Amino acid sequence: MRSNPTRRTALVNAAIEVLAREGARGLTFRAVDKEAGVPSGTASNYFANRDELLRQVGEHIHVRLAPSAQRLAKTMAAPPDKSLVERLLRELLERLEVDRTGYLALLELRLEATRRPELQAALTKTIRENLERDVRFHLDAGLPGDRTTVVSLYLAMSGLMVEHLTLPDVLPEEEMTNLITALVDRA
Amino acid sequence: MRSNPTRRTALVNAAIEVLAREGARGLTFRAVDKEAGVPSGTASNYFANRDELLRQVGEHIHVRLAPSAQRLAKTMAAPPDKSLVERLLRELLERLEVDRTGYLALLELRLEATRRPELQAALTKTIRENLERDVRFHLDAGLPGDRTTVVSLYLAMSGLMVEHLTLPDVLPEEEMTNLITALVDRA
Repeated sequence: MRSNPTRRTALVNAAIEVLAREGARGLTFRAVDKEAGVPSGTASNYFANRDELLRQVGEHIHVRLAPSAQRLAKTMAAPPDKSLVERLLRELLERLEVDRTGYLALLELRLEATRRPELQAALTKTIRENLERDVRFHLDAGLPGDRTTVVSLYLAMSGLMVEHLTLPDVLPEEEMTNLITALVDRA
Repeated sequence: MRSNPTRRTALVNAAIEVLAREGARGLTFRAVDKEAGVPSGTASNYFANRDELLRQVGEHIHVRLAPSAQRLAKTMAAPPDKSLVERLLRELLERLEVDRTGYLALLELRLEATRRPELQAALTKTIRENLERDVRFHLDAGLPGDRTTVVSLYLAMSGLMVEHLTLPDVLPEEEMTNLITALVDRA
């Protein structure tokens, strides 16, 4: 296997584009090569097989969707009250607007995981770890609420994001904004 | 177009199986015929094209996933308090357990809608109508909470269902049960 890390990341990002646009069944080495603009056969030099490509997409996608440390530090300079929780959720929605492709690809990956036990195990591990990290982050920062608050907000935001990504006109922008305030207030 | 309604419904249900198992790109007339166990060419006699098949799946799937009127009437005989809201949400999760295929197919359909404006418009209409009906149902029944309560619970349950369908080990059964109680308490 080749190991040029920049090239490998470019191929993984191309796979994310293909996943979002074509769905999991459209994700072939050939489609990834074409999307990345590299010679046919390149992806097969970087990934042993399609399962390995899916696994690496599942890892990288969470890095890609995470907030930058710099931005997070700036946000966390404010007092740890309800309005800061609200701001963190709004910044999550902003990241979704900036990288719809990444979030769509993650949904496609979740569905593909229902057909591939190994991918399901890997994604479960990553998402559990992320959720536990979010819970610790919330409590350590002294933000209001408990573990149940964080998990409830995670689920509601996950529902909101699926709706906004797939059927954006079900909840108009204004209702979404008000909902976030209400969710934080009540959670 | 043929119009035998029993045969048509059988073909739509076969399409739901194919969608859940293979994803949207696997949904061809040939796959539907095979899944329904009918002669090749049958589906194409019932649906003008693939878009029309997707549209009919989008309509029928909501009928398939809805609670039966009888069951709902039985549940609604209880006093309209928090514990009844909790029970309604638990019955939604029970329907999900009984028909995982239907819910998975709906997620696949949502993703396909990001690529097909007509399907997106049709699904948006159906899901908005269902949500408005749920809000009216909740308020008319005198259940506790307001419109925001219903929409918040809809989003949190939608997030919970995506998690449970695609990565069931992220939230263990027991945590899920406690979460529903907490969601209703706080919403």
